[in-house]
Amino acid sequence: MSRNEKPAGRTKYDDVRQRGFSDRVSVEQAIDWLEAHASRLAAEQVAPDNAIGRVLAEVVEASTDMPPCDCAAADGYALRSDETIGASDYNPLLFEIQNAGDSLRPMGAAMVAAGMRLPQGADAVLSFGASRVSGGVLEVYSSLAPGAGVERGGQQTRAGTKIHSTGHVIRPQDAALLASLGMEHVTVAGQPRVRLVVAGAKPIAKSQTTRDADGPLLQALIKRDGGVIESVISRADEREAIRRSMAPPGPDVIVAAGRTGVGHDDEAPLTIAEIGELAIHGVALRPGDSTAMGRVAGIPIVLLPGDPLACFCAYELFAGRLIRRMGGRLPELPYAVREAEVRRKIVSTVGFVDVCQVRLVDGGVEPVGSAELSRLASAVCADGFVLVPAPLEGYAPGARVAVHLY
Amino acid sequence: MSRNEKPAGRTKYDDVRQRGFSDRVSVEQAIDWLEAHASRLAAEQVAPDNAIGRVLAEVVEASTDMPPCDCAAADGYALRSDETIGASDYNPLLFEIQNAGDSLRPMGAAMVAAGMRLPQGADAVLSFGASRVSGGVLEVYSSLAPGAGVERGGQQTRAGTKIHSTGHVIRPQDAALLASLGMEHVTVAGQPRVRLVVAGAKPIAKSQTTRDADGPLLQALIKRDGGVIESVISRADEREAIRRSMAPPGPDVIVAAGRTGVGHDDEAPLTIAEIGELAIHGVALRPGDSTAMGRVAGIPIVLLPGDPLACFCAYELFAGRLIRRMGGRLPELPYAVREAEVRRKIVSTVGFVDVCQVRLVDGGVEPVGSAELSRLASAVCADGFVLVPAPLEGYAPGARVAVHLY
Repeated sequence: MSRNEKPAGRTKYDDVRQRGFSDRVSVEQAIDWLEAHASRLAAEQVAPDNAIGRVLAEVVEASTDMPPCDCAAADGYALRSDETIGASDYNPLLFEIQNAGDSLRPMGAAMVAAGMRLPQGADAVLSFGASRVSGGVLEVYSSLAPGAGVERGGQQTRAGTKIHSTGHVIRPQDAALLASLGMEHVTVAGQPRVRLVVAGAKPIAKSQTTRDADGPLLQALIKRDGGVIESVISRADEREAIRRSMAPPGPDVIVAAGRTGVGHDDEAPLTIAEIGELAIHGVALRPGDSTAMGRVAGIPIVLLPGDPLACFCAYELFAGRLIRRMGGRLPELPYAVREAEVRRKIVSTVGFVDVCQVRLVDGGVEPVGSAELSRLASAVCADGFVLVPAPLEGYAPGARVAVHLY
Repeated sequence: MSRNEKPAGRTKYDDVRQRGFSDRVSVEQAIDWLEAHASRLAAEQVAPDNAIGRVLAEVVEASTDMPPCDCAAADGYALRSDETIGASDYNPLLFEIQNAGDSLRPMGAAMVAAGMRLPQGADAVLSFGASRVSGGVLEVYSSLAPGAGVERGGQQTRAGTKIHSTGHVIRPQDAALLASLGMEHVTVAGQPRVRLVVAGAKPIAKSQTTRDADGPLLQALIKRDGGVIESVISRADEREAIRRSMAPPGPDVIVAAGRTGVGHDDEAPLTIAEIGELAIHGVALRPGDSTAMGRVAGIPIVLLPGDPLACFCAYELFAGRLIRRMGGRLPELPYAVREAEVRRKIVSTVGFVDVCQVRLVDGGVEPVGSAELSRLASAVCADGFVLVPAPLEGYAPGARVAVHLY
């Protein structure tokens, strides 16, 4: 038997333990699998107050004209503009102060507050600073144009005006406008409930405590991507514990970290293969090549490497994409992208998409450390990362690359 | 008495109600007052898991070498590199498999997992894919260089290496690294406890429900800026309710919205003047000119206009800055800034800093609607805003401006 041949009798999956990957799917193939299994969740109705950060599942149109009628744009006195003609600092005109609830009498002026409906007959609002009250009479010191100080009915929004498209992430000012319009709810995409399964540190790996890092890392990233943590299961290390951690019902997605590699105790992929479908194990991504994907009882599962940097990279490209897509968000990496020139050679392995941590230097970029240094500390001192496509062996100085900025 | 003269007997503050502002401080003066009263809060110690999004209050240095000793960089077999010289696919060399806990015997190989300390004598780790086990003997198919597959002690970080500066906002990967290093806590800036006081809708302004918008808007912005809501007090409309809403103890900052203008019932600034110090009422900002600032029992208070857009703008420039500063964050507006060319004239009022809502068009910007349209709906359909300095009457087409992007 050659060393790359599959063991006899294993038809459902390759057991890579103590053998290494003989084959890996491309990053594109892995993404295709995720896209095919990222079912959209049922939409929900939430009040504007609770909608901030949620994703619209339908177009939002203004439910009403705003303001609903001609209103005072600011505090002041409502009056007829044509009756103010000729008023000036040297020629104050006198108006009778009346109740704002009544129709405006000739040479009448009614105190109004911003947002208040104009009295019948009024067509302008005079600011307090251009007037003075003296003995129940209003002295007016300037003439007004028709409509001055007035906000027209529907001037802010007209009923039926499209305010937001599907997929828009509600910002604070959006929620405030929806509340202003008196809208009681908006329809937003459901949030994926994510079960997080984290393996314990390997007993033989006592010299490092890195596994403890994956839990907080992944919880924060899942929340950033709009997921809701359904539960966190720790120390799912052995086959029976892994099997239990994958048991439905509950989550819409399962994200697991650890026990995905080629060590003798890396049993997570095999467990998926036994109790469900292991679609992919081994992806041409560096770091992160032991990533696996599959389903149990219809629930998609992404298995991430336990090494924190590999876990981080594979989460961003795969698990995060699945969560973002299921929750109606843009699937792309949630980082700003800037083009920059390579200042020091970026080395990559042909056949793998390489996630290269980079630092910004004088408008250009350089890799952080060497390939051997590509652990979590490199992502912490980096300003961002560059994805080097699989066919390339890197980028020479002078090349223009897209930098994803942390 | 001329109409701009102060009423007799009022020496502590101008009562602007039903008179209008006769004077306004500049935006710069208002910011100076805030900076002078933004006391830093006591730092706290939190576990790395709870530190994501918090601001470091001191430099973080690695507490230990990571890894603490020479370790396997990946799963495989640890061995002596010089004993692999000459191995190839056509000339496998045979190694005896031994326990990883013992010193390496001549031609010995010990299975190790990533992160495990190398056995005494080993200087390289062979991947599973370059070997095959047959009858308890390891067949090695390639020669290794010294150090291959090994992560040197301290290669990721050395004890004492500076990892982060004061003021750094902890990201998920930072928390993961701190956890990896075994650090039990980090020192972060205290979070300002913010009391939010929101006036009810004015009884005379029934035609609009805009006041309901300020509460959710401000809560979201305060959280974004690292503040913690101490309490929310609604319908603080009349003097006694306003007075109670400002009563210590509890908050580090009070942010109030509404009842700051020139209407007869705009009593919030007067109440501050009575029970504490009203330092500023009236700022040369549009929208947002009725903003006020002061202190009660040493607690800084920012009073924001009730109109949602004015509230939003004045929060961003003033209240948000105070909260960010007190919590150790950068005081600047938390928006990305991009330079762009003005495509359609931006009109502004001389003497006021104007917050102009703009839309991006073909790489340039144009104002959203007209000056009359500058209400909340304009901030919702805008891509960002331009701050027009007080001395300018706007920007002509072709001018280059800094756009703060939503």
